[in-house]
Amino acid sequence: MDKVKPSTLPGFMELLPEEQILFNKMMDIIRKHYEENGFLPIDTPVLEKTEVLLAKGGGETEKQIYRFTKGDTDMSMRFDLTVPLARYTVEHFSDLNFPFKRYQISKVYRGERAQRGRFREFYQCDIDAIGNGKLSLVNDAQMPVIICGIFKDLKLGNFKVHINNRKILKGFFENLGAKKEEEILRTIDKLDKIGMGKMVEELKDQGLKEEEIEKILEFLQIQGKNSEKISALKSLKIENEKFKEGIEELSQVLEYIEAFGVSEENIEVDLKIARGLDYYTGTVYETFLTGHEDVGSVCSGGRYDNLAEYYTDLKLPGVGISIGLSRLFFKLMEKNLIQAENKSLVDLIVIPMEGFLTEGIRLVKTLKEKGIKAIIYSEEGKIGKKFKYADKLNIPYSLALGENEIKTGLYPLKNMKTSDQEELSIEEICQKLK
Amino acid sequence: MDKVKPSTLPGFMELLPEEQILFNKMMDIIRKHYEENGFLPIDTPVLEKTEVLLAKGGGETEKQIYRFTKGDTDMSMRFDLTVPLARYTVEHFSDLNFPFKRYQISKVYRGERAQRGRFREFYQCDIDAIGNGKLSLVNDAQMPVIICGIFKDLKLGNFKVHINNRKILKGFFENLGAKKEEEILRTIDKLDKIGMGKMVEELKDQGLKEEEIEKILEFLQIQGKNSEKISALKSLKIENEKFKEGIEELSQVLEYIEAFGVSEENIEVDLKIARGLDYYTGTVYETFLTGHEDVGSVCSGGRYDNLAEYYTDLKLPGVGISIGLSRLFFKLMEKNLIQAENKSLVDLIVIPMEGFLTEGIRLVKTLKEKGIKAIIYSEEGKIGKKFKYADKLNIPYSLALGENEIKTGLYPLKNMKTSDQEELSIEEICQKLK
Repeated sequence: MDKVKPSTLPGFMELLPEEQILFNKMMDIIRKHYEENGFLPIDTPVLEKTEVLLAKGGGETEKQIYRFTKGDTDMSMRFDLTVPLARYTVEHFSDLNFPFKRYQISKVYRGERAQRGRFREFYQCDIDAIGNGKLSLVNDAQMPVIICGIFKDLKLGNFKVHINNRKILKGFFENLGAKKEEEILRTIDKLDKIGMGKMVEELKDQGLKEEEIEKILEFLQIQGKNSEKISALKSLKIENEKFKEGIEELSQVLEYIEAFGVSEENIEVDLKIARGLDYYTGTVYETFLTGHEDVGSVCSGGRYDNLAEYYTDLKLPGVGISIGLSRLFFKLMEKNLIQAENKSLVDLIVIPMEGFLTEGIRLVKTLKEKGIKAIIYSEEGKIGKKFKYADKLNIPYSLALGENEIKTGLYPLKNMKTSDQEELSIEEICQKLK
Repeated sequence: MDKVKPSTLPGFMELLPEEQILFNKMMDIIRKHYEENGFLPIDTPVLEKTEVLLAKGGGETEKQIYRFTKGDTDMSMRFDLTVPLARYTVEHFSDLNFPFKRYQISKVYRGERAQRGRFREFYQCDIDAIGNGKLSLVNDAQMPVIICGIFKDLKLGNFKVHINNRKILKGFFENLGAKKEEEILRTIDKLDKIGMGKMVEELKDQGLKEEEIEKILEFLQIQGKNSEKISALKSLKIENEKFKEGIEELSQVLEYIEAFGVSEENIEVDLKIARGLDYYTGTVYETFLTGHEDVGSVCSGGRYDNLAEYYTDLKLPGVGISIGLSRLFFKLMEKNLIQAENKSLVDLIVIPMEGFLTEGIRLVKTLKEKGIKAIIYSEEGKIGKKFKYADKLNIPYSLALGENEIKTGLYPLKNMKTSDQEELSIEEICQKLK
């Protein structure tokens, strides 16, 4: 028979089991924090009507989307979790309770040009709080609080959530008299990538005057603690309502964050961040791993005025964050930043000698009843091979079983890392492993 | 602006958050059992090369598959998890340890005709044990053991795993001299659906003689305990090697199942089941909820000789089971069989009076530090509306917070189910909720 070559599509990530265990552990931590903070799970279909997904339409999205027809139906694979959330919120509006706080951890699809560390299928881990008409700033504070909880638990070292409010930027530019504020914001947003010199050049190209650029630089260079930055902003005495509103909101959010118990060392007011996307209208966030800023922001998001304007006249303001887990995982693997201490999902493997398989199964049963995650090595073969299997699967303990062990009731528990071995009773094994 | 009507594609299941919580709890139980029994997670891409997915080709699959091209690439969405497993096992062969035991809980896609309770996107929860060259029967025993663990934990009432070995059927028919054994097996497999009369008719149409059909009926009507059935089979004195091998394997598997500690009340030798699929070659399983047999088998599977013959000459025998979770969940909802006792993921909601939001957040922080899953009600509004929100979200406890509570340090903990309310200190609240 002719064989087909078994391979995945280019740009699609696929992990080996031991990597998958680490990936899943990260995902579990994220999910735990999302749930414990009151966010409810939803799980929208991967496939949606194209007209629904592309209601906003335009640009890159349309090029990258996986779109096809089956029968008469024009359908596409989702490219993010925000558009499906908008559709979900409007479709199920009368069955939902507001503020509607949901999380979704799912794969999304983008047929991008293949590039190292960019994937065409990747996990997004999103939370959003959606208000019916309005939404308290407490939600804006909750986002960085949850980010901090997650990244502490992920044990990836120090990190910092950068926070800003787009109204401050918007008001500042309005006051400057600058016309093309969206364009300028986009330029400023790239500061970390392109550097100060290039940014100034781009601003000049956009038609800004010397003194305007001077003011922008002054504004961007405000330094100090968060409270000092707020004071410095206030003392600029800019008479613009939006600007003032932004400062008010930002200091209110900082107050709530402090009440949630998150220390300032993980939260930094950063007037430079604007987020590229057009629909953020208030608080915005980016998160950086200290010493690994080159990875880019590992968790971003912000406040928007209207989640679902393409589907409804209802005003649905929201605030949300997203962790691009596949990309983060890839980068962490590349930098060797993931702790591999515990790569097994079981505690112990029972390795029966020839003829002692049924006895081995009974022992597994007994250990499981006592709360030990024990499994049996089920195949025939040489004893060395069996231990090698236990080792390769990173199972912490093994235990060989033969006539002698059954007679004495003492079992040679072997620590697979240290190769230390002790003769123990079942009770002693349970005590040691718990 | 013209609005797009927000709706999902027909045949795609989407749950409300409180249903999703129940769904996820079931999925978590399945995953826990899979993991604790030594199965490793993998997560293959939803999209694969069409030539890989359709290597076996043919029939319904090809009609139902979601297939399209992007650029020059012909790609398709997976329609099961077995073909991706075969591709994965061969592609990563040198990095895997055998027996390779993997689980995958993922969505699969079939563009079937829309039908009540049939979905075009649905979850499969699969485990398979794959041997390199050969694979011990212990694995055949482990499958029903895991099914029993899962269905006990799911608390859906009594259930029974039906077990058979296709070699018994195959040998029996060989011995009869029946030619079209695959066809006959398929007919027998439908017995429960079509009834005895219709089955006999179909067998006649297939050209079987009266006395052959008589023998088949006799065989199918073997009664008694599992051990009695094995004895009855042996006493048929059929001189066929395959038949004898099947009996040997089945009784060996039953012995291992017993050693794993699973009682006979959950395991039934059922000579009728053959499983429609052609590739099962040994042990086969189906699982039924007692009193709800009309739902059909809720977990099925079996042993096969060659997982990946379309990709490789390697001999990769395996045994596996699959739970079609989306369909099961739908049926359970329909029959009102899911216990809704605990539909909240948090323990308590703090409801601050006007002006006490920051104090409320501090209280949440304190409770969280003590291990209570507390959240804050963040919006402005009337107190009644806030309690209603807690109620609708099925949060077990609420706690209103105002000046008096802060002064006294005593908080009115309200049981949302019973409406009972007690004035308690923070310590007392923690004790009560743990």
